[in-house]
Amino acid sequence: MEIVSPASHEKASLSTRVWWWFEALPKRLTAKVIETANNTKKLAQDDPRRVTHSIKVGLALSLVSLFYYYQPLYDNFGVSAMWAVMTVVVVFEFSVGATLGKGLNRALATLLAGALGLGAHHLAHLFGHIGEPILLGLFVFIQAATSTFVRFFPKIKARYDYGLLIFILTFSLISVSGFRDNEILELAHKRLSTIIIGGSSCIIISILVFPVWAGEDLHNLIALNMEKLANFLEHPSVIEYFKTSENEESNDDKSFLQGYKSVLNSKSNEESLANFARWEPCHGQFHFRHPWKQYLTIGTLTRECAYRIDALSGHLNSDIQAKPEICSKIQEACTTMSLESGKCLRELACGVRTMTHPSSAKPHISKAKIAAKKLKLLLKSSLWEQDADLLAVIPGVTVASLLIDIVNCTEKIADSVLELASLAHFESVDPTVSPEKSQVGQGEPDKPLAEIACPQVVIIVDRSENENPPGPLTTRHIEM
Amino acid sequence: MEIVSPASHEKASLSTRVWWWFEALPKRLTAKVIETANNTKKLAQDDPRRVTHSIKVGLALSLVSLFYYYQPLYDNFGVSAMWAVMTVVVVFEFSVGATLGKGLNRALATLLAGALGLGAHHLAHLFGHIGEPILLGLFVFIQAATSTFVRFFPKIKARYDYGLLIFILTFSLISVSGFRDNEILELAHKRLSTIIIGGSSCIIISILVFPVWAGEDLHNLIALNMEKLANFLEHPSVIEYFKTSENEESNDDKSFLQGYKSVLNSKSNEESLANFARWEPCHGQFHFRHPWKQYLTIGTLTRECAYRIDALSGHLNSDIQAKPEICSKIQEACTTMSLESGKCLRELACGVRTMTHPSSAKPHISKAKIAAKKLKLLLKSSLWEQDADLLAVIPGVTVASLLIDIVNCTEKIADSVLELASLAHFESVDPTVSPEKSQVGQGEPDKPLAEIACPQVVIIVDRSENENPPGPLTTRHIEM
Repeated sequence: MEIVSPASHEKASLSTRVWWWFEALPKRLTAKVIETANNTKKLAQDDPRRVTHSIKVGLALSLVSLFYYYQPLYDNFGVSAMWAVMTVVVVFEFSVGATLGKGLNRALATLLAGALGLGAHHLAHLFGHIGEPILLGLFVFIQAATSTFVRFFPKIKARYDYGLLIFILTFSLISVSGFRDNEILELAHKRLSTIIIGGSSCIIISILVFPVWAGEDLHNLIALNMEKLANFLEHPSVIEYFKTSENEESNDDKSFLQGYKSVLNSKSNEESLANFARWEPCHGQFHFRHPWKQYLTIGTLTRECAYRIDALSGHLNSDIQAKPEICSKIQEACTTMSLESGKCLRELACGVRTMTHPSSAKPHISKAKIAAKKLKLLLKSSLWEQDADLLAVIPGVTVASLLIDIVNCTEKIADSVLELASLAHFESVDPTVSPEKSQVGQGEPDKPLAEIACPQVVIIVDRSENENPPGPLTTRHIEM
Repeated sequence: MEIVSPASHEKASLSTRVWWWFEALPKRLTAKVIETANNTKKLAQDDPRRVTHSIKVGLALSLVSLFYYYQPLYDNFGVSAMWAVMTVVVVFEFSVGATLGKGLNRALATLLAGALGLGAHHLAHLFGHIGEPILLGLFVFIQAATSTFVRFFPKIKARYDYGLLIFILTFSLISVSGFRDNEILELAHKRLSTIIIGGSSCIIISILVFPVWAGEDLHNLIALNMEKLANFLEHPSVIEYFKTSENEESNDDKSFLQGYKSVLNSKSNEESLANFARWEPCHGQFHFRHPWKQYLTIGTLTRECAYRIDALSGHLNSDIQAKPEICSKIQEACTTMSLESGKCLRELACGVRTMTHPSSAKPHISKAKIAAKKLKLLLKSSLWEQDADLLAVIPGVTVASLLIDIVNCTEKIADSVLELASLAHFESVDPTVSPEKSQVGQGEPDKPLAEIACPQVVIIVDRSENENPPGPLTTRHIEM
């Protein structure tokens, strides 16, 4: 079989081909299994909370199935216990906010629609045997059409979409099934109480067992996005764009520079997290009525800065490179602008993460602005007269101009983070506490600050997402 | 009451304040009602398909309620008819693709989970009265945890998320309720058949009554996004940026220039539409296995172009304007680049909308590229030596450089649209048919083409979203 030449493949009979297929099957299956296992491992390692969440859902579902197994409970609820199982499957979401939102929506909508359905049932009953089904059909039609239309309102869709769905469902079920079932009140009562049991077990488990807070996720996402932009701006290959001699060797870690790309499309993620966060009670460092809206403002400004960085990235990677003579002239100002903007963004991210007033970001932004002014003066000077070929100047000047844009964007981000700090009453730190940190940052201007600034915070962030906030943060909150 | 001075407000007693509150109530209520009515009207006018969809849901729900009213049907299904009502409420989505996807997911998951649940029930039954609940609880736990984890795989989440939810639900219901109910096979059978009845009535109504195709929406969205970019590039205020004398008066219609902003965040919308479109059968001009993935590629490139336009827009609106002398020099090339890129995008959008080969886009892109080359030569020439103040040159040069970027992006978009045209077998039109159209475009280079090019297509687009494709498009498809 193994010595069949490629040319004879075409002439191979059907049975031979089937044989080959089966012969190759174990290999292909093994490869597929290994690939799936690797994917699963990666998925779990990327966010271990996924594993905990899966276990939590299994736990809640097994708990609620007790209604069937345990005789006294079953005697009380009977087949209605089904609603509890259903509620758990449908309501249990990844974050506490989403679970709470869905649970409350479901319970309130069931209560309201149940009451209205009962009313509709009684009203229709007055119209006799012929009028009743017609009137009920009409009620169901009007209610379903109206509620479906209301679901299109953007504000309602964001917060009460699921509630309206359950409203339509319950109203139809109660008003229509009432036509047959005389024990309609008991049905409504049982449905509501089992839903409340199912919903509250979801909420309790999601809050008590390794809680995943949407608010915390949003908080970290906003800080992470700023850090991603800082990573780009402080990256050696961006800094060394102006040092043409080293241009070649920085090609290997381009992938690191792609980190900011995810910021470009973070809008929908941020918005849904903010919606969920509004349902959450106060937890960790976040009080009730935490200014979640301000996070969206910061997110929008961060995205605008990311658009500029995307344009900048296009220029840095383009084939047309700036002339060495020009580069050397604007190098210092450009490097300072990029580095200081990056440092400012990192300080802001640090401030958001640790919920401290990011007062140390201000000096960086002023330095960046001074560098921008210097650059403008430099360009204004007659230094350029000797260089008649403007085409050679363009790449460098465009990059410089984009960097000026980025400095402006960074300033806007800083303003909105400061507004958040005052809205959320961020703790103001004593600047005398950690003078060595800022010295380190200033002493090595060409080195990216990723490993220098806030290393303890980076560790906190990686772990805090599936654990309770670590000691220092909690005590800081208590001190406030 | 009316002569109370503002100063005495503070001293007003509680009863007075309550009286004022009640006095102002009717006014406030009226204002609120008027506002809501206006919002509702706007929502319905923006997309009249929302109204049709609401009516369709009401219709499907009333139809399914027949199971309760009509005696012979009720005798067959009894209380299980509830599942049909539930299925309609949950499965009926805005577009055909979403409804089909959800319906098929629900039916298949119910079938599979029902069979597995029955198997688990029988297996557990072998272990006697004590072993049975323990084993069933274990099965439910393992199944729920595994399925919940599988839902995190991005590819599965995109297409089978709802199916997995229903899988968990049905398995739990069947295996657990089987512990009590001896007629479990009948339950499974009834649940499946009522779900199929509910689901198929949804699918039939959504396909037959004013269908909303996700594929068509995606198709139109991609074309619309390209048109939005074209609107910006062809807008007089962009063209007149270089004619400084008219700079002041173009401030009034800035809102029109914001149209491209929605393109920046269209990613999630495009992706969900593409996911829904994959479920849809062939319809109108779209065959089975239409290359929906290629639309996402075009969407990504369009977004990249929109990022550049966003940067450009920032420069056009900035306080630092380019010097008139410099503007006048690069004016011609820049105007040509902007206009020709815009025209090219418009032709591409036209081609996508009418599903014809966008061969007329090529000349525009070549003209834009020639203009870019000219600009480079112009900048290379010694024409600039006299101008020592480079700072004054920067704004103009940056805008020019961004325009060169936009030309490159446009070329990439053109390539991907051409690829779509060959993948989807777009009809190639005879260039001799409408020579006057291109003449009009060339004759008036400074006038935006919005009202000139493809006016018939714009009309088609506005209406085609809630009606069947109009005559010309359908016959063209038949001719293919």
